[in-house]
Amino acid sequence: MQDIIEGFLKFQREAFPKRSGLFKELATAQNPGALFIACSDSRVVPELLTQREPGDLFVIRNAGNIVPAYGPEPGGVSATVEYAVAVLGVTDIIICGHSDCGAMTAISSDTNLDHLPAVASWLAHADAAKVVNAARTHGSAQERLEAMVRGNVIAQLTNIRTHPSVSLALDQNRLNLHGWVYDIETGSIETLDGATGLFVPLADNPQTSATPATAGLAA
Amino acid sequence: MQDIIEGFLKFQREAFPKRSGLFKELATAQNPGALFIACSDSRVVPELLTQREPGDLFVIRNAGNIVPAYGPEPGGVSATVEYAVAVLGVTDIIICGHSDCGAMTAISSDTNLDHLPAVASWLAHADAAKVVNAARTHGSAQERLEAMVRGNVIAQLTNIRTHPSVSLALDQNRLNLHGWVYDIETGSIETLDGATGLFVPLADNPQTSATPATAGLAA
Amino acid sequence: MQDIIEGFLKFQREAFPKRSGLFKELATAQNPGALFIACSDSRVVPELLTQREPGDLFVIRNAGNIVPAYGPEPGGVSATVEYAVAVLGVTDIIICGHSDCGAMTAISSDTNLDHLPAVASWLAHADAAKVVNAARTHGSAQERLEAMVRGNVIAQLTNIRTHPSVSLALDQNRLNLHGWVYDIETGSIETLDGATGLFVPLADNPQTSATPATAGLAA
Amino acid sequence: MQDIIEGFLKFQREAFPKRSGLFKELATAQNPGALFIACSDSRVVPELLTQREPGDLFVIRNAGNIVPAYGPEPGGVSATVEYAVAVLGVTDIIICGHSDCGAMTAISSDTNLDHLPAVASWLAHADAAKVVNAARTHGSAQERLEAMVRGNVIAQLTNIRTHPSVSLALDQNRLNLHGWVYDIETGSIETLDGATGLFVPLADNPQTSATPATAGLAA
Amino acid sequence: MQDIIEGFLKFQREAFPKRSGLFKELATAQNPGALFIACSDSRVVPELLTQREPGDLFVIRNAGNIVPAYGPEPGGVSATVEYAVAVLGVTDIIICGHSDCGAMTAISSDTNLDHLPAVASWLAHADAAKVVNAARTHGSAQERLEAMVRGNVIAQLTNIRTHPSVSLALDQNRLNLHGWVYDIETGSIETLDGATGLFVPLADNPQTSATPATAGLAA
Amino acid sequence: MQDIIEGFLKFQREAFPKRSGLFKELATAQNPGALFIACSDSRVVPELLTQREPGDLFVIRNAGNIVPAYGPEPGGVSATVEYAVAVLGVTDIIICGHSDCGAMTAISSDTNLDHLPAVASWLAHADAAKVVNAARTHGSAQERLEAMVRGNVIAQLTNIRTHPSVSLALDQNRLNLHGWVYDIETGSIETLDGATGLFVPLADNPQTSATPATAGLAA
Ligand SMILES: [Zn+2]
Ligand SMILES: [Zn+2]
Ligand SMILES: [Zn+2]
Ligand SMILES: [Zn+2]
Ligand SMILES: [Zn+2]
Ligand SMILES: [Zn+2]
Repeated sequence: MQDIIEGFLKFQREAFPKRSGLFKELATAQNPGALFIACSDSRVVPELLTQREPGDLFVIRNAGNIVPAYGPEPGGVSATVEYAVAVLGVTDIIICGHSDCGAMTAISSDTNLDHLPAVASWLAHADAAKVVNAARTHGSAQERLEAMVRGNVIAQLTNIRTHPSVSLALDQNRLNLHGWVYDIETGSIETLDGATGLFVPLADNPQTSATPATAGLAA
Repeated sequence: MQDIIEGFLKFQREAFPKRSGLFKELATAQNPGALFIACSDSRVVPELLTQREPGDLFVIRNAGNIVPAYGPEPGGVSATVEYAVAVLGVTDIIICGHSDCGAMTAISSDTNLDHLPAVASWLAHADAAKVVNAARTHGSAQERLEAMVRGNVIAQLTNIRTHPSVSLALDQNRLNLHGWVYDIETGSIETLDGATGLFVPLADNPQTSATPATAGLAA
Repeated sequence: MQDIIEGFLKFQREAFPKRSGLFKELATAQNPGALFIACSDSRVVPELLTQREPGDLFVIRNAGNIVPAYGPEPGGVSATVEYAVAVLGVTDIIICGHSDCGAMTAISSDTNLDHLPAVASWLAHADAAKVVNAARTHGSAQERLEAMVRGNVIAQLTNIRTHPSVSLALDQNRLNLHGWVYDIETGSIETLDGATGLFVPLADNPQTSATPATAGLAA
Repeated sequence: MQDIIEGFLKFQREAFPKRSGLFKELATAQNPGALFIACSDSRVVPELLTQREPGDLFVIRNAGNIVPAYGPEPGGVSATVEYAVAVLGVTDIIICGHSDCGAMTAISSDTNLDHLPAVASWLAHADAAKVVNAARTHGSAQERLEAMVRGNVIAQLTNIRTHPSVSLALDQNRLNLHGWVYDIETGSIETLDGATGLFVPLADNPQTSATPATAGLAA
Repeated sequence: MQDIIEGFLKFQREAFPKRSGLFKELATAQNPGALFIACSDSRVVPELLTQREPGDLFVIRNAGNIVPAYGPEPGGVSATVEYAVAVLGVTDIIICGHSDCGAMTAISSDTNLDHLPAVASWLAHADAAKVVNAARTHGSAQERLEAMVRGNVIAQLTNIRTHPSVSLALDQNRLNLHGWVYDIETGSIETLDGATGLFVPLADNPQTSATPATAGLAA
Repeated sequence: MQDIIEGFLKFQREAFPKRSGLFKELATAQNPGALFIACSDSRVVPELLTQREPGDLFVIRNAGNIVPAYGPEPGGVSATVEYAVAVLGVTDIIICGHSDCGAMTAISSDTNLDHLPAVASWLAHADAAKVVNAARTHGSAQERLEAMVRGNVIAQLTNIRTHPSVSLALDQNRLNLHGWVYDIETGSIETLDGATGLFVPLADNPQTSATPATAGLAA
């Protein structure tokens, strides 16, 4: 904790003064363009990865970057998505998985979670990806994990489409969905191409999005 | 979205190379010392505020920095707290509210949320603070909001004590709880003194914590 | 009730003897090829519409032909979908809306449902379609209703993709999804073309399905 | 799927024209006299068994012909019962079990359902019948199953009496409840005699109902 | 609080010594014959009303003497009923309403409960009685309340029959159900006659029970 | 049951006449000063232990004297606490555990509760105490149970602080919380000292309460 408090003192001395104008401007309003949904993992820092400043990214972080499908008892993720889309009007939602994810490793290796009942219950929101991944063949445990991380991003994109606020914004062509996987060791990101269902390097495919060209939800 | 992708390319060019050793080390394990629970608000960046690097902070972010009390249907926050405390063994949990919080403003000003059902349902986890704040007298709407932000941090600290993993770690003296309020405009932080129930400047009180001196939960 | 019992006696005298061989064969096993999900409406008889015999269609019927998205407390529809796909191995799922639907009329005309709390709660599973339909402009109340019926079929197709059993079967290319709207007065059916998001006459487009050509869920 | 579409084309050519007057009349209203609750099983076709035409039967179908008891989170069955009784004013509700039921076989033989979590959760609504059946002695597995099918119908009749709309209609003597078991091989139906708790042949006992002579719910 | 502690000191001085043998015997086991379910109301003391000693009555008390119907998320009443019937093997369950009940008055007079959300949610378990009572005509508000108290006892008896442990015990003829209404002013009790659906004076009808002569649940 | 009815007749002959004035006064109103939350155990009679008369104690009784933390689906205990604090304005809440508690024994000895699903689900509200107790070392099974009983009282006191009505009353200094453990064999009571976290004899410490001197919840 000592390091955290010293970090804060350093923030006051160095980082804050550089941005005092920005913070003054932000004191009474925010206007982020995107909602970034990432794992709670300490190695995945959305603002660092995208070199964004305060005010740029509205952020949800939880174990496994999970978005429960919409239902009669919406929880914190549903509420925060609703706020981001219906109140703040974000134009992009990025669901970002990552390499070496503890939550996905637990699923991929079918770890016994009896002693972690809340974790077990939460990861059930990734069951649609879990059963697909378990039924496929993989070259190694590592490949199984990597496939699980990607499959989970796809499953959460399916889940988020059941949310009314997202459904409406997609219908009105004012929202794009993005599915990313970040690799901690190399610092690279792959993005889901909604048209093909494949992940491609983001650096080479900056225009690619998970939202299909044909508006599947609208009719 | 263009700015986010350009930011990522900049990360690859500049920020990643500076930390390539760190990221290599982190590629297969994380060992964060603290769980930081903050609002999804784009202006509250935990790693920036505390000048922490990847690997340092396990992070939960949702609208209102809320931690539901433990119950039979634990959601994402409960799962992530359980993972942080029981699996990763963090030694500190910081619940960090902030000035000008949209969620707290909605509660404080009793905004009609009928058109935001998921938000309304989620903010009910702050009802213990809401009713206290509504019953007190405040000098102005601004003071009412500031009191609500502080009261919410206290209520979430009460909620988190109902979690089994937190209860156990507190009993074993291997966890400290911290209640912070961050002021966007001035870059300052107040911290809750559990012994007095008052918020004091963190810069002047680096040893203060929300965990009472006498172990209220253990007997 | 008198007519129903007389109908049963007529069944015993006339309809059963014609099918006694079929019923003997079906006495200890069923092997339906499709799951048909329709409204409880008395005017929508799946077996009549498709001229199918006992043993052909596994059937779910509820108010509004609704399929809740998958979540931690699955109900009767989720259980029946799971049984149909994972145990019986149906190869097709048809979600069939219909003209003049009472449930969709209630949504489309924003009827007060305070005196029907269970109905109100259930129809929330169509909220993703409701908000889209309410935001669009329609030429008349009749057109608004027709659009709601179609939009609801699309929303339920989105919901059903969040079910693990469906996700797996789609990934293994052993399941097709179909979105139908049946018109009571004319006896015609329109089917959703997943590639364009448009409804087209089933009679002219017998190969059309709601499952996109590119496997959106698999990767 | 090919057979289903050809069936629909045949419906348009043959079945629809015979009923075009009926369908024109039904185009804008339904007035069914009864709610028929049956299993999703492909071999149980309510309209065939009772030789009813479109417009006659409001129908609920799910795995195991189950009606959850009323509670704070009503699902699809509760909503559809409420709509049938409170809006449409049906005068009879038939809960119809059947021979060789897969859901009842799973309960009766205590099948492991770990791989079918939604099914397992749903069948818990038959636990009141399950524990009774498990505690009794049966001559054979076949007899155990048959007793389970009957016991389940009784348990669901107990459950449906907890629904406010049903409670009110029973109190006003405008609703009768019926418990049926259909035998696929012989085409016969047994009906529950509420006065004795025994099942008797429907063909010989057309006036028998499950509603007790003395109004147990009213006082 | 002072009076309560003085009462306890008096208990130690006077009431305990008189029963020290009984308490010694009870120190390591209880064997109550009945489960008594009463309102939390301070004027309804089960042990006083029935002049029972410690060890005689297993007791549930909550606002409105309510027993939720059995469902997938059983709460405290369901758990306590299960414990009483399946573990302790009580042979009788008494559900006891009372005159001037605050919970029943709130229902009977349709009091706005928006400021008491937990109360409102809980009283929904009496909706089956509420709608019946609201639809009947009553001579006065007092008569409406008295009818509501009786109707609620009947509705809770219907609810308790959906519990598996109760269903089993009834089937094995080792449990009787009783529906009582206690009048505070006169000290009299009326008991429900399950055969007629009417309440009769307990003093004159000591053998009357709510369990129908014919075993409605068993078949 | 015979003894209970004879007890009631004795109540009418003896106990009621002695209190006819009190009951006449209580006929149309109650004004209890305290809410007493105890186990359903037949050996724990709140009014006997505290020598209180009808009208004095508002009482909740359930297996394990449990108070679930506040959440989106409040049950009977939450509703009754809300009624006691917000409507009746009680000034004290006593949560009273007891020796030889069956519920606490089940937890303490880690009894398999698979056959008692409702009990198992309910006792999860004591998990925060269970994990602490399981991790500590105890001299014997008896000591483990006694520690569990005490730990459970503490955990339920933590849970009750999450309730909005309790939070408000504590903030306004109009409510005190008390944690008691009653010993059946000796008739003694220990009370929790909130300032030290220790249990002390109530007879010697009549002013001790569980509410900390410093208002931990208010700020
Ligand atoms: Zn992760
Ligand atoms: Zn905020
Ligand atoms: Zn319909
Ligand atoms: Zn069946
Ligand atoms: Zn009462
Ligand atoms: Zn106990």
